[in-house]
Amino acid sequence: MRVLLVGAGGVGTAITRIAARRPFFEHMTVADYDRGRAERAVAALGDRGERFDAVRLDASDPVAVRAALDEHRCDVLLNATDPRFVMPLFEAALARGTHYLDMAMSLSRPHPSRPYEECGVKLGDAQFDRAPEWEAAGRLALVGMGVEPGLSDVFARYASDELFDEIEEIGIRDGADLTVEGYDFAPSFSIWTTIEECLNPPVVYEEGRGWFTTAPFSDPEVFDFPGGIGPVECVNVEHEEVLLVPRWLKAGRVTFKYGLGDEFIGVLRTLHKLGLDRTEPVPVKSGAGSALVSPRDVVAACLPDPAGLGERMHGKTCAGTWVKGSKDGQPREVYLHHVVDNQWSMREYGSQAVVWQTAVNPVAALELIAGGLWGGSGVLGPEAMPPRPFLDLLTEYGAPWGIREQ
Amino acid sequence: MRVLLVGAGGVGTAITRIAARRPFFEHMTVADYDRGRAERAVAALGDRGERFDAVRLDASDPVAVRAALDEHRCDVLLNATDPRFVMPLFEAALARGTHYLDMAMSLSRPHPSRPYEECGVKLGDAQFDRAPEWEAAGRLALVGMGVEPGLSDVFARYASDELFDEIEEIGIRDGADLTVEGYDFAPSFSIWTTIEECLNPPVVYEEGRGWFTTAPFSDPEVFDFPGGIGPVECVNVEHEEVLLVPRWLKAGRVTFKYGLGDEFIGVLRTLHKLGLDRTEPVPVKSGAGSALVSPRDVVAACLPDPAGLGERMHGKTCAGTWVKGSKDGQPREVYLHHVVDNQWSMREYGSQAVVWQTAVNPVAALELIAGGLWGGSGVLGPEAMPPRPFLDLLTEYGAPWGIREQ
Repeated sequence: MRVLLVGAGGVGTAITRIAARRPFFEHMTVADYDRGRAERAVAALGDRGERFDAVRLDASDPVAVRAALDEHRCDVLLNATDPRFVMPLFEAALARGTHYLDMAMSLSRPHPSRPYEECGVKLGDAQFDRAPEWEAAGRLALVGMGVEPGLSDVFARYASDELFDEIEEIGIRDGADLTVEGYDFAPSFSIWTTIEECLNPPVVYEEGRGWFTTAPFSDPEVFDFPGGIGPVECVNVEHEEVLLVPRWLKAGRVTFKYGLGDEFIGVLRTLHKLGLDRTEPVPVKSGAGSALVSPRDVVAACLPDPAGLGERMHGKTCAGTWVKGSKDGQPREVYLHHVVDNQWSMREYGSQAVVWQTAVNPVAALELIAGGLWGGSGVLGPEAMPPRPFLDLLTEYGAPWGIREQ
Repeated sequence: MRVLLVGAGGVGTAITRIAARRPFFEHMTVADYDRGRAERAVAALGDRGERFDAVRLDASDPVAVRAALDEHRCDVLLNATDPRFVMPLFEAALARGTHYLDMAMSLSRPHPSRPYEECGVKLGDAQFDRAPEWEAAGRLALVGMGVEPGLSDVFARYASDELFDEIEEIGIRDGADLTVEGYDFAPSFSIWTTIEECLNPPVVYEEGRGWFTTAPFSDPEVFDFPGGIGPVECVNVEHEEVLLVPRWLKAGRVTFKYGLGDEFIGVLRTLHKLGLDRTEPVPVKSGAGSALVSPRDVVAACLPDPAGLGERMHGKTCAGTWVKGSKDGQPREVYLHHVVDNQWSMREYGSQAVVWQTAVNPVAALELIAGGLWGGSGVLGPEAMPPRPFLDLLTEYGAPWGIREQ
């Protein structure tokens, strides 16, 4: 297997560190808009970097991406960029006949007149529209294969296969107790993506009703996270699992709630109120003239790079899938979870917990594809794959998962 | 009198409209970085615009400002720009031997090690340092001559002269009940200046102790504003009056509190937390390259121009000076105030209430200087001038002030 990894940010860099310890692939080309960033990721691998090289690549340029796939003779494109670049990378892989993996899906657009009640264009719609072409090409686009979406979907499939006869609700729940020394406010994950997720209308699935949306930050609940994290207030957020799970699994209801906490919700509400969440460029004075900049990019530029915060970060992050239903005629409720301690991920990999937890999953998925345990063709979510080999491999990677009966 | 008005934003434009109705001056040159803005201000005067012309001028370029003063044979420079341009304009006027008026003073810099306890460089320090040169030149720099500072200082002097024998505290209190239709959040005054005022350490004066600072938003109190505005929560804010009043008047304590309200305080706290209040440029992607932009400028660019909100604005704004002390051996407490109804200022002048209320004061001051009722040389605050003629003239301008015994 020869991989084109696009994006050498926090997650991309962690992918190289995890993959470097696994023998399943032949070569990985690390591509980034900023060539220096790709080079630094490869250089940091030291002796383990022999199978890697670094190149400059503009992910928004389909011609350049196709040329890179050809030049490096790749059979899979692993997309570790932000969600704006999903479609050009996905299309380039289809055009060159390679497999494709990503960790976030094509972007949604709110319903034009009833944004907080009905879906407009849903997350992943643009990708699923192209499923027939992927099937015809006999190639696999494995979409949403990070931790959430990704591992959370594998958990859902595992619960559906082995733990439940009937499922009332599948609720992804994400929470952390991470703090960053020396900063008033320092998100542990891309602020661009967090704004996108949290300010878009959250989507909910109900059997019979289908997908619908609500106002941002709706339906707050306090969820008790394992690993010593404890209770965190979670709210509805737009997320891929809600769109993926019902395509393969039967459940009365599917939700995603994110443990944002009051402070983060306040920040996001304020950014929205001031129009600073917008991506459309505004004219601003720059030097002697004027420049067009996206307000959301300016917000990101003012905050520390989350990938560089690992040394000052303390605490744990938890991703997981809460499932409620019945087994053998008895009610059952479980939380399948994956906890990463920042201290551990920094010590073992030099990557902070949130990016490491995202990065480990696509590497494990590639290993299963390389070994033939996962496969197929078309545009498929993680819940379309057999869950057991993945969960076992995760434990082998040193990142065991857990189950809590509620 | 020939005036160079620098700045044709909301306040500058309102100045032209107010001045156009008064015969006291011979000519006013309206200068702005954006020539079109200056031209629109003059064009809007219609038949009343004969004494005005519009030019382009970069307020940060002292050579250009001196040349404009010469070319238009001005004997006074009226500064209606934001506080960044105080010093170059003040220096240019001194260099050309003209009088100078502004509505905000040279900027402060926090104390390097104890910012919330001690003053560093204070508001106006850079201007007062140049007082000997202004005195030697026999020219007047009348600083802080808007509404606050400005009218508020005139009120303080009036109270000191006529209403009190001894003054315990002079507290400027500013509050409004303005709302803007169709916007979640739309400040009625320059956000750049509001951030500067509200996030700098507030300064307080106490007799014996002198000037000292506190943490932002300190010492909240609910103040009941007249004109139907009612109670508004006010907090300490850095403002010129606290630096001006004790230089000329005797008072036990001088404070400035601004009726920001919870929502605005929340917004300002969040901007600060995210570093979006900063003025130092950050690199941001722009088109194919990268641009250096000031985050605070981006915040301003995302919000509607406050000068253009008048049509959608409702309510009143109140500026005033609360004084507590004694007269003839009896305790006394008064609030001297000036209320402007947005509906009135829009109808009469096409200017929204907050900018109109700021603009009327320097025009009245110029009229008193032109008539010889106000004068002197050096760097002087409004409280250095006799208050009665000013207060009478304000009433003649159709903007009467009031007094409330507490």
